[in-house]
Amino acid sequence: MENILFANRKACQDLKNLSKTFKDKKFHLKNLIADTNRLEKFSLKSKGFFYDFSKQRLNDLLLKKLYELARETCAKESFSQMVKGRMVNKTENRAALHTAARDFTRDHIILNDVDVVSEICRVNKQIKNFSQNVRHKKICGTTEKPFTDAVVIGIGGSYLGGEFIYTALKYFIEPVIDLHFLPNVDIDNFGQVIKSIDPETCLWIVISKSFTTTETMANLNQALLFLKNRDLDPSKHLVTVTAKGSPGDSPSDSRLDSFHMFDFIGGRYSVTSAVGGLPLSLAFGFDIFERFLKGCHKMDLHANNAPAEKNIPLTAALIGIWNSNFLHYPAQAIIPYCSALSGLAPHIQQLYMESLGKSASFDGQILDNQTGVIIFGEPGTNAQHSFFQLAHQGSPFPIEFIGVINPVYNKIQAKSKGVYNHQELWANMIAQAKALAMGKDDDDKAKYFTGNRPSSTILINDLTPESIGMLLAFYEARTVYEGFMLGINPFDQFGVELGKILASNLREHIREKNKDAKYDFNSLDSTSKFYFEILFKGSL
Amino acid sequence: MENILFANRKACQDLKNLSKTFKDKKFHLKNLIADTNRLEKFSLKSKGFFYDFSKQRLNDLLLKKLYELARETCAKESFSQMVKGRMVNKTENRAALHTAARDFTRDHIILNDVDVVSEICRVNKQIKNFSQNVRHKKICGTTEKPFTDAVVIGIGGSYLGGEFIYTALKYFIEPVIDLHFLPNVDIDNFGQVIKSIDPETCLWIVISKSFTTTETMANLNQALLFLKNRDLDPSKHLVTVTAKGSPGDSPSDSRLDSFHMFDFIGGRYSVTSAVGGLPLSLAFGFDIFERFLKGCHKMDLHANNAPAEKNIPLTAALIGIWNSNFLHYPAQAIIPYCSALSGLAPHIQQLYMESLGKSASFDGQILDNQTGVIIFGEPGTNAQHSFFQLAHQGSPFPIEFIGVINPVYNKIQAKSKGVYNHQELWANMIAQAKALAMGKDDDDKAKYFTGNRPSSTILINDLTPESIGMLLAFYEARTVYEGFMLGINPFDQFGVELGKILASNLREHIREKNKDAKYDFNSLDSTSKFYFEILFKGSL
Repeated sequence: MENILFANRKACQDLKNLSKTFKDKKFHLKNLIADTNRLEKFSLKSKGFFYDFSKQRLNDLLLKKLYELARETCAKESFSQMVKGRMVNKTENRAALHTAARDFTRDHIILNDVDVVSEICRVNKQIKNFSQNVRHKKICGTTEKPFTDAVVIGIGGSYLGGEFIYTALKYFIEPVIDLHFLPNVDIDNFGQVIKSIDPETCLWIVISKSFTTTETMANLNQALLFLKNRDLDPSKHLVTVTAKGSPGDSPSDSRLDSFHMFDFIGGRYSVTSAVGGLPLSLAFGFDIFERFLKGCHKMDLHANNAPAEKNIPLTAALIGIWNSNFLHYPAQAIIPYCSALSGLAPHIQQLYMESLGKSASFDGQILDNQTGVIIFGEPGTNAQHSFFQLAHQGSPFPIEFIGVINPVYNKIQAKSKGVYNHQELWANMIAQAKALAMGKDDDDKAKYFTGNRPSSTILINDLTPESIGMLLAFYEARTVYEGFMLGINPFDQFGVELGKILASNLREHIREKNKDAKYDFNSLDSTSKFYFEILFKGSL
Repeated sequence: MENILFANRKACQDLKNLSKTFKDKKFHLKNLIADTNRLEKFSLKSKGFFYDFSKQRLNDLLLKKLYELARETCAKESFSQMVKGRMVNKTENRAALHTAARDFTRDHIILNDVDVVSEICRVNKQIKNFSQNVRHKKICGTTEKPFTDAVVIGIGGSYLGGEFIYTALKYFIEPVIDLHFLPNVDIDNFGQVIKSIDPETCLWIVISKSFTTTETMANLNQALLFLKNRDLDPSKHLVTVTAKGSPGDSPSDSRLDSFHMFDFIGGRYSVTSAVGGLPLSLAFGFDIFERFLKGCHKMDLHANNAPAEKNIPLTAALIGIWNSNFLHYPAQAIIPYCSALSGLAPHIQQLYMESLGKSASFDGQILDNQTGVIIFGEPGTNAQHSFFQLAHQGSPFPIEFIGVINPVYNKIQAKSKGVYNHQELWANMIAQAKALAMGKDDDDKAKYFTGNRPSSTILINDLTPESIGMLLAFYEARTVYEGFMLGINPFDQFGVELGKILASNLREHIREKNKDAKYDFNSLDSTSKFYFEILFKGSL
């Protein structure tokens, strides 16, 4: 990519000019959607995935300009480079090969003399064997009882994706091993988790690439003490998912097994690696995990191969940029009309905001345009009874609706008002998008709706592992595309470092105080001193 | 209140002028917080509740102007009117008496010839008796087995507050009756909930003021069919929380009992009424619920009686207005450093966004200023590993940190890096606020932090019901204050009506199709027709 800042791109100038005309009443969504061909023109479909952007504030000309931005920024070329294993994570000099984790074409990708694909296959085979042995009760705990539960210790990228997929697939298939997530260093997270497990039948999965993550190490230490106090042997109860050669990969330490993760897959893109693979295979079986990977792969192929104008994640990324940088919406809500997808928004919140919440271009220039926006969301119809008041009558923000054509529990069939629950759900989803777009005039201004509020709607066929995989890979590809077109690096996260350094400095003072009760906090700034004194005193 | 629009208030003009000066470098937070007296000046305390706003972008002069806005808008008088039972919900001609639900001073409040306080006492006594009888196994199901679980059917205001408080108190005390929440009309929500209960030992609590809420009625019908299929008698398994005289209050219907809710308490403010009272008393006992109410009452007294300059919710509301309307932040994150408070942000998201997401003043004039902002959040440190990248280096938004001085599981004591988990948690919380404010210069622009990002920090002593009550009532009072000062009605929600009407229209067509497979959707707009055809076809 050439070193041209986003704001200086020709397409951006054109889009900026066009955005002014969009204030005109004739571009109000209620006028735009009056065109009966609009849905056909402004929607895309790819095997089991449908994307309707007909209620976004755009027209033919604008869409053409957006695709010009894609071309000018060589978005498709960058994506293709990523898939091939080039160093697209430039600031960290790394590849970004989450797509290789589910590449069933099995073409070789050589990185630093190592074949990435066979490394991934090796780990997946190991996961398959281990999870089968646990599920078939061939591997048991210290007291020879089979495992029934697993606690997953890991935070951020080692947590949110796994929880999202576990929650979703639990609707589709009953887990054999129940998963419990322990991300937070908060001791109450640990305390509550151990109440829900039987120590003798519980496996602990510790996930950290570097095996130095503070929260994860602190919880590992709690787990080790917990096992020790119950005379349970860590070498029968604890596995690690970590980088080759990390402190967690040491075979001398008493561990049941270690599964490798790789520096060419970033944390927030890692749910299709061993990070998600091990816990999900334990819960549902490796075959289900593999079906999930196949769904991801299907979307990856589309994202990489479909031409720009037919490319769903690329188009969604362009619309994201249009909404944030030209229509100046500060946020994007993700509203799945589906309880099983309750973990989607928290996961995408991380994926998107950590990937795109940047202030510098990939080559180190300060940007003055918007990069990522705030992502939030809850399932519908719940959200309608929560924050949709503001969506309709407060400051507007675009919404992404997600509909699932077939629910899991389609045999439960009481009708209300002449319709089944799932039909009611859909009537609501469609009505919300329409209401946001159309608005409603009313002399009583409390009942007046401006309308012209944009939304997209995604449809998937069902909650099979394949469909969930397509959905996940769609969001990954879209995030990456948006990063490439904004000219930022969607794979680094230097913005989290400053807080870590300051926390580490503060920790030193607590450690001193723990060692010597007479230690005062006088060398600290007055606020930190005040807070620590309250903490040690134990009350306000 | 006089009919002056917010933007035309004298204090607003002054604040607008002052906001321009705040772009000056000397008002960068790193300079402001260099003042060692700042914390003392810009923090407030009231019995077990501490509010630190020293890292907000304000100074003495600005704060003075903010309090002038409070005076000019008669905020305290309005609050006092509300507590006394005046018709502060003007658009619906209702009182807003959630504070009466926990008013232990027991002064009489007469509303339409009825004494509100004795009505509330009556319902609470009924809750106390019923929950004791269920917990002591005096009331049992059809098969004479004692109840172990309860499914709470209710959505929005009949759901989020209850889930928040249930989740939080579960850390403090083990529930005797486990609660399961069934808000969503999604049939998969129902399907998943019934997998986790034993029908014979499960009580169903149906919460709807009007007893017409579509989602709640649809789930009630599923529940009735579920009971019927198992030969279980609804009159032994089902209770309602509803308005006197609603269709759910009919004694002829076979129900175990009905508990009244009142039109002077709005849904999103109703967790201290029977809406929260019944499920929470079943789970934890009425005494725990009462302790929770006492915490709320403590904060209510403070919110009503403390002078403006010492008033925590009033001050927080003013800062909210400063941030949204003058510094133009579009959102506010709520980050409790506490796993037990994971339900706080979703509840406040509803409370705040539904109360303040308005486009008209309380007397029906269209506003052109910002009203409510987007609320979102996850517990820390989890959030640090999720979306804090954007908080540090993307478009800024204010953050509210919440610290709990004493965790529940303070006996679990493995140390890491010389500190306990809870100390690590606090080091991180303090470090984040500091990093956001200070920023950091760096020649490498990928590692450069602008700083000047505002935050507040709230401290509570512990996770007792009293402390949780104070926290809830703080957010309620703050939301109400913000509404009063913006000149909007924080108690209505007309913005949710349009979607309901459109959904109802669409439902008619599905009902026709259910009756007659030959029915086509040709009279519908082309998009709705397209979606319904897919739904009936069952695939893309």
